[in-house]
Formats: sequence, structure tokens, C-alpha cells
Amino acid sequence: MIVVLAGGVGSARFLQGLIRIRHQEEITVISNTGDDFQFYGLHISPDIDIVMYTLAGMVDEEKGWGFREDTFHCQETLSKLGLESWFKLGDRDLATHIYRTNQLRSGLKLSQITSNLADSMGLRIKILPMTDDRVETRILTEQDNIHFEEYMVKRQMRDDVRSVEFSGIKEAKPGPGVIEAIQEAEAIIVAPSNPIVSIGPILAVEGVREKLKASKARVVAVSPIVQGSPIKGPADKLMRSTGVEVSAFGVAQLYHDFLHGFILDELDLEQKARIEGMGLSVATTNTIMKSIEDKERLAERSLNILQS
Amino acid sequence: MIVVLAGGVGSARFLQGLIRIRHQEEITVISNTGDDFQFYGLHISPDIDIVMYTLAGMVDEEKGWGFREDTFHCQETLSKLGLESWFKLGDRDLATHIYRTNQLRSGLKLSQITSNLADSMGLRIKILPMTDDRVETRILTEQDNIHFEEYMVKRQMRDDVRSVEFSGIKEAKPGPGVIEAIQEAEAIIVAPSNPIVSIGPILAVEGVREKLKASKARVVAVSPIVQGSPIKGPADKLMRSTGVEVSAFGVAQLYHDFLHGFILDELDLEQKARIEGMGLSVATTNTIMKSIEDKERLAERSLNILQS
Repeated sequence: MIVVLAGGVGSARFLQGLIRIRHQEEITVISNTGDDFQFYGLHISPDIDIVMYTLAGMVDEEKGWGFREDTFHCQETLSKLGLESWFKLGDRDLATHIYRTNQLRSGLKLSQITSNLADSMGLRIKILPMTDDRVETRILTEQDNIHFEEYMVKRQMRDDVRSVEFSGIKEAKPGPGVIEAIQEAEAIIVAPSNPIVSIGPILAVEGVREKLKASKARVVAVSPIVQGSPIKGPADKLMRSTGVEVSAFGVAQLYHDFLHGFILDELDLEQKARIEGMGLSVATTNTIMKSIEDKERLAERSLNILQS
Repeated sequence: MIVVLAGGVGSARFLQGLIRIRHQEEITVISNTGDDFQFYGLHISPDIDIVMYTLAGMVDEEKGWGFREDTFHCQETLSKLGLESWFKLGDRDLATHIYRTNQLRSGLKLSQITSNLADSMGLRIKILPMTDDRVETRILTEQDNIHFEEYMVKRQMRDDVRSVEFSGIKEAKPGPGVIEAIQEAEAIIVAPSNPIVSIGPILAVEGVREKLKASKARVVAVSPIVQGSPIKGPADKLMRSTGVEVSAFGVAQLYHDFLHGFILDELDLEQKARIEGMGLSVATTNTIMKSIEDKERLAERSLNILQS
């Protein structure tokens, strides 16, 4: 079993490559839920959804979110009612959130609901929420304490970030199967997503980091930073705010206590020696996933370094 | 001020006529909420919605519910997730229910939310839910106790009805403005809707029937029964099950304690004398509202009998 710690878009793209070279049944994704939030009273799980939609071939790849060719009739009507619409929800996409919210209210756990959703999309990969408890990634700016999605989507990452908090993380128990998956994994991959707000919350769930350190499986991380910038999203601002060097090296530092291998972009070759200096095996390749071939190659590199 | 006790489709059509001859600002609708129910965890108010959509010119007149030219992308997706879809909800229509549910959860009352919804649709007519409390019209069949919408829409009125219950009605307080509207009305019209399940719940709310009897305004009812059959819906079955004669006379009997006038269909002329025998003024006209002219004429007849 290959276990992948995953955030949103970058992780979803990486997984698209991985399922081309491994059976879905052999892969377990542990998904960040710190981005989960309520919008219109509906429970949205942005990271779980982007992974599901992407792997099911339903995602709008151009936008990077939502369903391909979706309509927005419901949200357009909600806007006329005076509700905010900074988080875009297409009509087909809405079904996921209505379903999830309704099932949560009737007492099901996020993990069960996620499994049902993945099934209905024809996925055979296992997607485990990091926790069934409520964790919220909060961004503390100069003036405010706001949810990560509000910071990223509504405010377009304009605010200066003072710090990041995972509200509820102390009380959160790992979701069903999470610890077992790490313990029984043959290989563990940290997908190329934001190390602070996408991978960070997973690592902060009780027991996860310890079990990663103790795991007999080799652990490899794919750098989401190329030439000092994230491929997508606010990783640079968030890393800087938490005092981490904005580089592949900085990412490796965040994970080094449980890491064996590291996939570095070929444009960052000059960082190879520094990262190897931490005792890690380093492989380089193109990590900017444009074509499906890019994704497959990156997945292959990650598996190879695990076996080497 | 003209007060109209209203149910669904029949009442909405009647009101379409009334707003052509009176300013919306002069009309207060007291709306049945016994049909309200939860679907996908969303709070649906079928009678309030059909009145709003119809008066705003947005209703799908052919179907008799929902928005004109709506799409069903969300519900189609929910069906694929295995959820029931016997109650059809278009994408634009869904916005109403998501809005209402979200506002209820944040502590607003149904009356305030209804007022906001009506405003947003450009309506100036006042629509008052009969109560802000939860009342559910339940249909007791041989085997089951089911919600009225389930009986009507899901089971297509196939079951034999033993009795009808308004669950929660004893604890329900009249909605804000309901009693005042009846007390201050110049004229009161009982619109042509199902007397058992559409008008019945309104009359059963604490104080409503007494205030109707005590009101200085004249009260007229428009018959929803023509030649022994309802124009639409299951009124015949429900009247029969509660031991009421399925006829305009039967309807007049249900209301006679607070009624002054009665609008009878011209096809039911032979019932005029019987109804007059109850001490009511009776006018006859075509009550089957097909064209907008039909609706306007019916509204005019109702106002005339109130003034005579």
C-alpha cells in the first residue's frame, strides 16, 4: 500500500500521475481537512473535493476547481438574495456539499461520507480525511483572524500574514484508518502541496508525525517550491510568516525528521547538496506538472527513490 | 387592507388576478406552512414559494411549480449519489431553500426570511407565514403516517386516507402580524385552495378562527371545488376522509361560522340555494382560472361580493 499525504490542486495532479502507474486499490490518500468550512450553511471540503473531482476526470482543469462545464444558476440566484459569492459553487458541485451536509447532520462521519462520495464517482482509491473532528486553518493577519479559504479566495492572499493556527487540532483524533495506513504502508509520499496549510494540518493531528517517524516504510516528499516560489497558492507568504526559508530546502527542513527521500525540481539543482546534507536521498526532475506525462514521470521518480 | 388566506397553486393564481386590480401594498397574504418539510436537509416552504414565484412572474406555469426554464444539474447529481428526487428542485429554485435554511440556522424567523425573499423578488405584497413554529401536515393512511408532500408528490395521492393531522399545531403561535392583519382587515378572502390541508392548518392556528369570527371585515371564500371535484390536487380524497361532502357546499360548511360571502362556480348553480340557506351571500362566476382575465374576473367578483 502506498500512502499519500495530500492537500489540494498540486496533490491532485500528482495523484493523477500515480494512478497511471499503480492500481487505485493500492493507494491510500490522507487528506487535509483544515480547509473545510461552512458556506451558505453547507459543509465544504475543498481538498477532498479537488482530489476526488480530479481523479474522477470531472474537474475543470482550467479553473483548477469545480466540475467541468458546470452551470452557476443556483449561486447566481443566491447572489441576488444578497449572499456573498466569493467561493464559487457550480450547480453540480453543490450536490457534493448538500449531500455531505445532509449526511453529517444525520450523524454520519466525514470519513464515511467521503468514502460514499468517492464510490459514487467510480473511484477505487481510498481517501481518508485526516480527522472526522473539526479543524480549521486560521490565518492571523495584522487586523483579523480569518479562515484560510477567506484569506486565499476572498482576499486573494493580499493580507500580510502574522501566523497560522489550526483551531481544534489539539482535540482532533486521527480519522479511521489514518494511523493504520501509515503503520502498514510500504511507501509514503508527501505530495507537492503547501507545507504549512495543506500538509501542516495532517502532520499536526495527534500521532501522525510520530507514526511517520516510526514507520518502517520509506517516506519521500515532492517539493511544491520551485526557484523560491510555489507553483500555485500562497506557500511563500505562509512559509515566510512562520520563519521558514522559502525554498525546496525549507520544505525539506519542515519534514526532515520523518523523511528519507526528496524530489527536487531540476531548476533547483543548486539546492541538492544542502538537502542531501540533512541525510536525505535527493532526485531531480521536472516537478511542474503540465501534461499527464509530466505527472506520470513525477510519480515514477517518487516511487523509484523509495525503492532505491 | 385585504387579507387573503392562501395555500398553493390555486391561491397563487387567484392572487395573480387580485394584484391586477389592487395595489400589492394593500394586500396581506397569510400563508399555509403545514406543507413545509425538509428535503436534502433543506427547509422547503412549498406554499409560500409558489405564491412568491407566481406573483414575481418567475414560476413555471406549465409545471405549476419551480422557476421557469430552470436547470436540474444539482438534483441530477444528487440522484447519482443515491438520494431520492421525487420532489423536484431546480438549480435556481434551490437558492431559495439554501437561503432559507441558512438563515433559519443563523436564528432568523421564517417570517423575516419570507419577507426578505419576497423583497428580493421585487414583491410589495406582504406574505405572512401562518406561524414561525413548526407545523407538519401528516397524512394517515392504512399503513403509514407520512408528510403531506410525500403523500401528494411521492405517492401521487394513491393511498387511501384515514385522517389528517397537523402535528405541532397546538404549540404553534400565530406568526408576527397574522392576528393583527385579521383584526384590521377591511376584507378577508379565503382563496381557492384545498380546505383541509391548505386552508385548514391556517384556521387551526391558535386564535385565527376566533379572530375571523370576531372580525368586523366581511369574509368571502372562493370555492376550490367545481362539480364535485377539485380543480387540482387531492381535496376530494381528503374531504371524504374527514367526512365532509365533496362539493362547494361542503367547503362552505367548513367555513360557514366565519363566512359572509361565497363564490360558486357557474357550473354548480344548483348548489346556490343550499349555500344561501346557511345565511351566506353567493355569487357565481367561472372559477377555473385559465387566462389572466379569468383570474382578474374572479378577484373582482370576490371584492364585489364583499362590498355588496
